[in-house]
Amino acid sequence: MAAEKISSRAQDYSQWYLDIVNRAGLAENSDVRGCMVIKPHGYAIWERIQGALDKMFKDTGHVNAYFPIFIPKSFLAKEEQMAEGFAKECAVITHYRLKAIPGKGVEVDPEAKLDEELIVRPTSETIIWNTYKNWIQSYRDLPLLINQWANVVRWEMRTRLFLRTAEFLWQEGHTAHSTQSEAEEETHKMLEVYREFAEEWMAMPVLTGTKSEGQKFPGAVYTLCIEAMMQDRKALQAGTSHFLGQNFAKAFNVQFQSREGKLEYAWATSWGVSTRLIGGLIMTHSDDQGLVVPPRLAPIHVVICPIGKTPDEQKATGDVADKLAADLLALPRDAFYGYDTLTVKVDRDFDKSPGFRFNEWELKGVPVRVEIGPKDLASSACVLARRDQPGKEGKQMGVPLAEAATRIDSLLREIQKKLFEKAKAFRDTNMHRIDSYEEFKKKIESPGGFFLAHWDGTRETEDKIAEETKATIRCIPFNLPKEEGRCMVTGNPSKQRVVFAKSY
Amino acid sequence: MAAEKISSRAQDYSQWYLDIVNRAGLAENSDVRGCMVIKPHGYAIWERIQGALDKMFKDTGHVNAYFPIFIPKSFLAKEEQMAEGFAKECAVITHYRLKAIPGKGVEVDPEAKLDEELIVRPTSETIIWNTYKNWIQSYRDLPLLINQWANVVRWEMRTRLFLRTAEFLWQEGHTAHSTQSEAEEETHKMLEVYREFAEEWMAMPVLTGTKSEGQKFPGAVYTLCIEAMMQDRKALQAGTSHFLGQNFAKAFNVQFQSREGKLEYAWATSWGVSTRLIGGLIMTHSDDQGLVVPPRLAPIHVVICPIGKTPDEQKATGDVADKLAADLLALPRDAFYGYDTLTVKVDRDFDKSPGFRFNEWELKGVPVRVEIGPKDLASSACVLARRDQPGKEGKQMGVPLAEAATRIDSLLREIQKKLFEKAKAFRDTNMHRIDSYEEFKKKIESPGGFFLAHWDGTRETEDKIAEETKATIRCIPFNLPKEEGRCMVTGNPSKQRVVFAKSY
Repeated sequence: MAAEKISSRAQDYSQWYLDIVNRAGLAENSDVRGCMVIKPHGYAIWERIQGALDKMFKDTGHVNAYFPIFIPKSFLAKEEQMAEGFAKECAVITHYRLKAIPGKGVEVDPEAKLDEELIVRPTSETIIWNTYKNWIQSYRDLPLLINQWANVVRWEMRTRLFLRTAEFLWQEGHTAHSTQSEAEEETHKMLEVYREFAEEWMAMPVLTGTKSEGQKFPGAVYTLCIEAMMQDRKALQAGTSHFLGQNFAKAFNVQFQSREGKLEYAWATSWGVSTRLIGGLIMTHSDDQGLVVPPRLAPIHVVICPIGKTPDEQKATGDVADKLAADLLALPRDAFYGYDTLTVKVDRDFDKSPGFRFNEWELKGVPVRVEIGPKDLASSACVLARRDQPGKEGKQMGVPLAEAATRIDSLLREIQKKLFEKAKAFRDTNMHRIDSYEEFKKKIESPGGFFLAHWDGTRETEDKIAEETKATIRCIPFNLPKEEGRCMVTGNPSKQRVVFAKSY
Repeated sequence: MAAEKISSRAQDYSQWYLDIVNRAGLAENSDVRGCMVIKPHGYAIWERIQGALDKMFKDTGHVNAYFPIFIPKSFLAKEEQMAEGFAKECAVITHYRLKAIPGKGVEVDPEAKLDEELIVRPTSETIIWNTYKNWIQSYRDLPLLINQWANVVRWEMRTRLFLRTAEFLWQEGHTAHSTQSEAEEETHKMLEVYREFAEEWMAMPVLTGTKSEGQKFPGAVYTLCIEAMMQDRKALQAGTSHFLGQNFAKAFNVQFQSREGKLEYAWATSWGVSTRLIGGLIMTHSDDQGLVVPPRLAPIHVVICPIGKTPDEQKATGDVADKLAADLLALPRDAFYGYDTLTVKVDRDFDKSPGFRFNEWELKGVPVRVEIGPKDLASSACVLARRDQPGKEGKQMGVPLAEAATRIDSLLREIQKKLFEKAKAFRDTNMHRIDSYEEFKKKIESPGGFFLAHWDGTRETEDKIAEETKATIRCIPFNLPKEEGRCMVTGNPSKQRVVFAKSY
């Protein structure tokens, strides 16, 4: 049973991505159009993402709650931008009953038609602000800092596992504040939570910035975002944080009595990240051997492979593997591992060849593999193989078993750091300042990347560039050097360079 | 701002329940028919429930995954019992697009009609077994031990917060096995997980047993259940575990090559508990002062209330409160707390009277309250108040601050134990053997309770009793003394007593 190799990134990037999703057991398309099945290994990564983010949300004062999956059609209409932005991709419930026809299956019962259609939430601002109306009377009820973990549905026409699916899992924060400045501060604070999570947990460097008018969230005053570069040099919008002003408070009449006794509309933010992050994780770190997962998000940190041909050898190396696993579990809980114990797997699949077993664990992206054969045992040692450097260069031979647990702990931290540095170097190498639109049109095709260019700030120019090159403004960045100049298309004045790229 | 008292259990049980759900901030009805909003305090209890159960599932070898929320209508029809059981309560998606009509809201786009309607999952056997078809080829692929945390929708006509809602949150386990005996073992194993969780975490005693044919899950060969007694002496079905035989494997053609090389249909189980458990938690322990949460599931284990009139007093008692909170957080992680740290809240709301503050925390069900006033401080002591014994009898005065943390830790364990014992005593007191149907018809009305009666095993008799008394067979119990006898209605022979009760 020789494993089929996955496609190489260089030859067929799209197929490489799908091969990894498939072969690492992350997800698959279901028989329901556009909806994916998240398989156990993929879901385990999502659980690690949830665990880390949930703690960060709670540490910044947020609590979780749960709101209905259905939204009356009329709610959507109350906020005009939202209606326009989401109407075209809504799943609509029109009936609440089927009837079973014996021998003929089931049919929709025409008698059970809803008076008002319901939509499956594409996002929950409307249903939540309709609820907040009853929760907010006084400035004492504010701020309201609530997050929801949920599934949402957007009827996308072209779907791609994790990156764009009809149903996806996400979290959506929805906060209400008594002042504009407090709401704006929250919008920035949560973007910073996303940046920290992306960089310190996912080891995925991101640019932070503001979306242009053309790219902002329907219903927002402005949208902040984190943008990452994938290995094909395209951009992935990995998280957004929206300042909603008083738009939803006005649409749902959410007023409160201020400290001064005046009736005022509440100020809102919303912010979210989704299972799309798993797509970003794959495309930031993985290689032609398969998935690479940064240690802090790895469902399995360490796999230990005892090796042996005879039952005696298998018992001897297996026992040592168990002992090492126990040593690893006894390492102190630490923030690096989310204050949890390490997850260690002992692979006793002696029926398969060592090479086959190593390949399978490389495919699944386990950060550190330990190999223990009879020869290693003779010298009370083992071999450590790091996933981020497949092949011989990533192997440490003859590691004394007595030191192995602490060496592995250091190695995991080292891998986390190196993955970030490597991804950042790649991103920085492929980010270019550019001043000529002609040159831009060529370079955006090949080699591609992030292009820092001057733009005159108009929707018209933004649309023209998108039409002609398929590149969009990914963000107006916060932390790149500010510099005035002239728009690469119109020559009109520009206050700073913005980031153009093709994107997912 | 005097707090309105909640209704008393004795005077109006239904209103008492709703008052607690409302005043403890657990949930509320939304503007979407039958769908609830789970508020932060209610959701925090659900998170504790999830955390404990999820660990128990993983410790028994299960992994999580996620399957689509939508199910093609035709899938439901493939398993006949399921079609009949769920068709009447399905939310049906017929369209995938709205269109915004400027100035007039949104309308369903008639051009965007689905070829085949989708239903929102009422349970996921069909979509999951349709997926398993591709995952199961050989006995080596089995067992498949998968759980899903998800929302489901059943269009119930009469709804009640937590107990019966159109949308609810739950977990559903779906396992596939190569032999009947292994699948049956799994069915029993997961029922035992539910029993252990109900009794050891929720402090809610349960009967375990088999459902009668009339009460089993549509599509199951048989259904096992845990049944708890609420304070109005009605039964609550708190969890079910189904042996599905080969019904779904046959409906979705899931065959595997056995060790002997034969093609066989896989054997299935499914099992689930839902946010309904929160309703059970409320009705098992709460009292006329409000919610009572067993410590192992409490979102806040301890609230510390410093008391003081002057800023100096407030600072002094507040500092001591912070010190005690730190002591509590430094207690060793322990299985009792789910290997997590304690959750401690310091309530510095000095603007409100101590009595008001104490009432609010009693309403919310925090197991232990610590009161620290200037007089306590003078003797380096504090007052511990246990929620399960409101009023003076539950107060320990003059507890030395140096011992407070360890005393509180013991007290939490003591409360957990006492809550279970109290609930069990209540259940046992209200469980009666009965042989006369006339007497049964009276007693089921008043005082109510669980009635152990002989039944002839026929659907006809079961239906007659249900029609005449509204009581149903809650289970054919596993662990009550077996004894032959004669059916209380027909006089026909019976092999053992079964449990009758009115139920939620």
